[in-house]
Amino acid sequence: MAQGTVIRVAPEQPTHAVCVVGTATQLDVLGSAPEDCTAFSLSTSPGVRVDVAHGPPTKKKKPTDSSKWPLEPGLEVTLKMTAVSNSMGDQKVQVCYYGSQSTPVHALLYLTGLEISLHADVSRTGKVRPPRAGRDQRTWTWGRRGQGAILLVNCDRDDPKAFSRDCEDDQVLDSKDLKDMSQLTLSTKTPKNFSAKHQLVLHVAKTEMDKVRVFQVTGSKVAPRYKVVLGPQQPSHILELPAGQHDADFYAEGLSFPDAGFPGFISFSVSLLDTSKLELPEALVFQDSVMFRVAPWIMTPNTQPPQEVYVCRILDNEDFLRAVAALAKKAKCKLTICPEEQNMDDQWMQGPNFGYVTRGAGEGEVTGLDSFGNLEVSPPVTVGKKEYPLGRILIGNSSYPSDKSREMHQALWDFLCAQQVQAPVKLYSDWLSVGHVDEFLSFVPALDRKGFRLLLASPRACYRLFQERQQEGHGEALLFQELKRKKQQKIKDILSNKKLRDHNSYVESCIDWNREVLKRELGLAEADIVDIPQLFRLVGSHEGQLKAVAFFPNMVNMLVLGKHLGIPKPYGPIINGRCCLEEKARALLEPLGLHCTFIDDFYSYHIRHGEVHCGTNVRRQPFTFKWWHMEP
Amino acid sequence: MAQGTVIRVAPEQPTHAVCVVGTATQLDVLGSAPEDCTAFSLSTSPGVRVDVAHGPPTKKKKPTDSSKWPLEPGLEVTLKMTAVSNSMGDQKVQVCYYGSQSTPVHALLYLTGLEISLHADVSRTGKVRPPRAGRDQRTWTWGRRGQGAILLVNCDRDDPKAFSRDCEDDQVLDSKDLKDMSQLTLSTKTPKNFSAKHQLVLHVAKTEMDKVRVFQVTGSKVAPRYKVVLGPQQPSHILELPAGQHDADFYAEGLSFPDAGFPGFISFSVSLLDTSKLELPEALVFQDSVMFRVAPWIMTPNTQPPQEVYVCRILDNEDFLRAVAALAKKAKCKLTICPEEQNMDDQWMQGPNFGYVTRGAGEGEVTGLDSFGNLEVSPPVTVGKKEYPLGRILIGNSSYPSDKSREMHQALWDFLCAQQVQAPVKLYSDWLSVGHVDEFLSFVPALDRKGFRLLLASPRACYRLFQERQQEGHGEALLFQELKRKKQQKIKDILSNKKLRDHNSYVESCIDWNREVLKRELGLAEADIVDIPQLFRLVGSHEGQLKAVAFFPNMVNMLVLGKHLGIPKPYGPIINGRCCLEEKARALLEPLGLHCTFIDDFYSYHIRHGEVHCGTNVRRQPFTFKWWHMEP
Repeated sequence: MAQGTVIRVAPEQPTHAVCVVGTATQLDVLGSAPEDCTAFSLSTSPGVRVDVAHGPPTKKKKPTDSSKWPLEPGLEVTLKMTAVSNSMGDQKVQVCYYGSQSTPVHALLYLTGLEISLHADVSRTGKVRPPRAGRDQRTWTWGRRGQGAILLVNCDRDDPKAFSRDCEDDQVLDSKDLKDMSQLTLSTKTPKNFSAKHQLVLHVAKTEMDKVRVFQVTGSKVAPRYKVVLGPQQPSHILELPAGQHDADFYAEGLSFPDAGFPGFISFSVSLLDTSKLELPEALVFQDSVMFRVAPWIMTPNTQPPQEVYVCRILDNEDFLRAVAALAKKAKCKLTICPEEQNMDDQWMQGPNFGYVTRGAGEGEVTGLDSFGNLEVSPPVTVGKKEYPLGRILIGNSSYPSDKSREMHQALWDFLCAQQVQAPVKLYSDWLSVGHVDEFLSFVPALDRKGFRLLLASPRACYRLFQERQQEGHGEALLFQELKRKKQQKIKDILSNKKLRDHNSYVESCIDWNREVLKRELGLAEADIVDIPQLFRLVGSHEGQLKAVAFFPNMVNMLVLGKHLGIPKPYGPIINGRCCLEEKARALLEPLGLHCTFIDDFYSYHIRHGEVHCGTNVRRQPFTFKWWHMEP
Repeated sequence: MAQGTVIRVAPEQPTHAVCVVGTATQLDVLGSAPEDCTAFSLSTSPGVRVDVAHGPPTKKKKPTDSSKWPLEPGLEVTLKMTAVSNSMGDQKVQVCYYGSQSTPVHALLYLTGLEISLHADVSRTGKVRPPRAGRDQRTWTWGRRGQGAILLVNCDRDDPKAFSRDCEDDQVLDSKDLKDMSQLTLSTKTPKNFSAKHQLVLHVAKTEMDKVRVFQVTGSKVAPRYKVVLGPQQPSHILELPAGQHDADFYAEGLSFPDAGFPGFISFSVSLLDTSKLELPEALVFQDSVMFRVAPWIMTPNTQPPQEVYVCRILDNEDFLRAVAALAKKAKCKLTICPEEQNMDDQWMQGPNFGYVTRGAGEGEVTGLDSFGNLEVSPPVTVGKKEYPLGRILIGNSSYPSDKSREMHQALWDFLCAQQVQAPVKLYSDWLSVGHVDEFLSFVPALDRKGFRLLLASPRACYRLFQERQQEGHGEALLFQELKRKKQQKIKDILSNKKLRDHNSYVESCIDWNREVLKRELGLAEADIVDIPQLFRLVGSHEGQLKAVAFFPNMVNMLVLGKHLGIPKPYGPIINGRCCLEEKARALLEPLGLHCTFIDDFYSYHIRHGEVHCGTNVRRQPFTFKWWHMEP
């Protein structure tokens, strides 16, 4: 709600004041009332509305006779102008003071009504509109009935040749760049003979100025130009208040996502200053604000339709690229291959032309847990009565902190929490050598139940499978049979390997722990979970601790493109001409309406401790659910 | 809620597991079921309770016949132990699998029930108790029905001779120091023949370890010793899990108040690790947590009864000290005079032996607005439906940011907001030379209405007073008449001084702005406000800007000790032998039941731009209202 200042009248001389239309303004009738007067009456021009109250502001007093009110301490007189003045001081308020004298004493107030308002898309309809009467644009609320304007972080590069992200320059590149910004209009209307004894200031708090940049539109409509008026180092911008009706248009871009110490709110204010007395400091007479919130950083789960797959070309992944390309084609999804010049032989890079955000580490140690394979997001879930329409972020951590434990960086956790819309969950992943949650879990779409299944890597399911195959007489079948350079292992030897069983029993207990956390935090039942056969083994880490790595290509580390799954080819034992691991995976996943493609990533990714999922990135269709409709 | 891990049974060999009493634990019956079996039944010892459900966890399936359940995907079997075992593995669960074979297949589980629980004062009764069944100690909630334990920042010095605050050392000084800490008890109970194949770890997140220090009580009850086990650099502490019943007592002290990036929550967890397999990493089998919140930093308003007044002795304030001492005596309030050796001639220092907190500035400029005269707190107020039972903090700022504006430091604002219980309000104080809110406002207790009045400095009230006195024939009366070294001014000259009137008209507009903010943010009416006559003048600042200073000693800058007010002696014009400003102040304040004492602070404080309020500090009776009863 806008605020005006107090207007004080005095019998000695007429008072002149400007007043912003629609703003309740306190009128001091009592302060200068003649000493012996006990009552007063008011007469006003048609464009002025006056309310009189005593004591508790809700208790309106009736005039003592038809038109008089008592002059008592606690008197509250509020005036509101209903229209912009046609000429300076064309609206009047006359106060008559009554006392023992026969003739009343008069005090006169000449008012000039102005319009000053900030227009933004407060209703979230996509349209910039004047504020509705009585609506407080300073508040921002969540939910379907919420209100408040939204700002995007302009973190993409609309010019692919640009060296930096769009929010890092002082330019408005083109209409695409402009579309990443939010409009703000300062609308003013004053009488035609309005003389500029006032100044307007558009401003943003100094603590918020480094989070936003505001451009003012200048020049013609045909050839608009854009000038930075607020932003880092520029908390305020002085504007003239001209005669007549004028709209000044501004475009704002966010520079930072919400984070620890920045809840995402940015408030733009306009202040009206009285500069009529040159020898005095300017006096504040009106202030209004409109609150924006920076849109959060949102992850898209595997259940969202894919739009584009990114993968890096390296020296020896030609076959892998071909397989991913074929899968993308099946899924009717664009493929972008990042060339070696760009990825500098980093096959885990996550793709060019992506809007992105980096988090400076500041204090604390950066570990492998801060990589983004350790960051997944569930499909939308409901837990008890609490809805998570954008799912929940899953991030791996240690089970308890110690000298040797690895935890994700606090800056990353703080960043994720600050987004608010995908309340993150800590999982236990420090038992893995690489330490990423995508080494033991994935989500796939499903037509029934909650619309998805959680896939968990399961040593027990693998032992059970091998046990059954051995009982069927296939104990001699070989893991890695199709791999020439790799030491092959018989099913019966795997089953009788006590050490491997112990390792997997430990791994099982770690995944079980996460199973219980996931069931509780995502509201899942056993029927929502599919156990994918997988073995691990423990290897010594740098610190001499035993950590788990996949024993054969890790099937849960898959690429999910709609119904099409690109699963790391496990190179399992061949029984009746078919890999029994592939067969089991198909048996588990195809009834859900999914199509399994097994992609050989053994030498190009698996032996470097990653798989298909780690080596690709997918841009997915954004949620149709509007994030501001939720109530975090 | 505590979490256990999954227990998996298999027909091949019996399973042995420990289970914490009262914790729902998933029992995997399906994973190792013989391939051809279609149903199962369960028989359990009396100390084990088992629940069976299929699909959606709420839908419990009836056994297929009197005692059998179908073996189907989505099966959920949950077990809970009801008592601690008398001996290892004395509780059993037997699973019978039924299939085409005539004899069922059996799987056996031997369970050992343990008790592991964290006890804290979660109910906020002052007593450390075991958690109530079903209560989730991991959540902390506000309000009269809220729950969650509380931690104090141990920021006082129980040994007055100590060099640092109590939270800065690794010692428990004495029972007084211990009273500033919160007790946490880890209670364990195991069978008498329990063999230590498990370990307990007490831990705190690495991101919270620098906010807390935990001492373990060792030694005898008569001569307890205290050893630091958690704290900065110590996130975890390993404990044995002995046979039988044992309580380990801990005491925790907070090291930091809530702040930006630290909401005040500190969670202590206990993890049970299976260390039975020496060649494998320890496996996590149980975890429980209890959440504490650090008590906020709370200001006490003038309406709270005073307990002790602090004032500094400097070279030339002997008379001032005598006057303050006399006032403190009237108010039956202890007086502590800080000697020159301690205050180093800083008369604005706020008193020794005070629990205190400092805020590092980090980035940004520190200005006079970061001083604590710029920080006031209102009495308890209700604004619309919103209650502020501890009042609201008031802090001065600029009206809009610019190159020349002074704002309070963001670190200070963040700190105040993070306390949550006294939601701060920004006022406009940058128009003042010193820039403090206590230069234009104060609160005094009152018996009627809201229990207090807001006093505002009022140039208009002063002009009106002088005008009336002139009309009564006292235009020749002199301001500063009683001051020998000061240039004296006639009432009529003050009234005809156009420049002074302009200055005060500007000051009035600044105070009016705050009047409207205060009315809105504290829910006040005109009847809650008293205008105290006061004149200001504008003087040039370093930056060449005009800023306001009090023209005569600033009466609102008063010391409030219950009903006794220590008001800066204004040295107003003497009329009929009495100072007309003092007389007016008395007329305004005495009807509220207040007693006015005017204290001469002219040469010792006023000419150094401070007054009585700036030169004193008051320790007041804490609120009886419990801060955790509010809902911020």
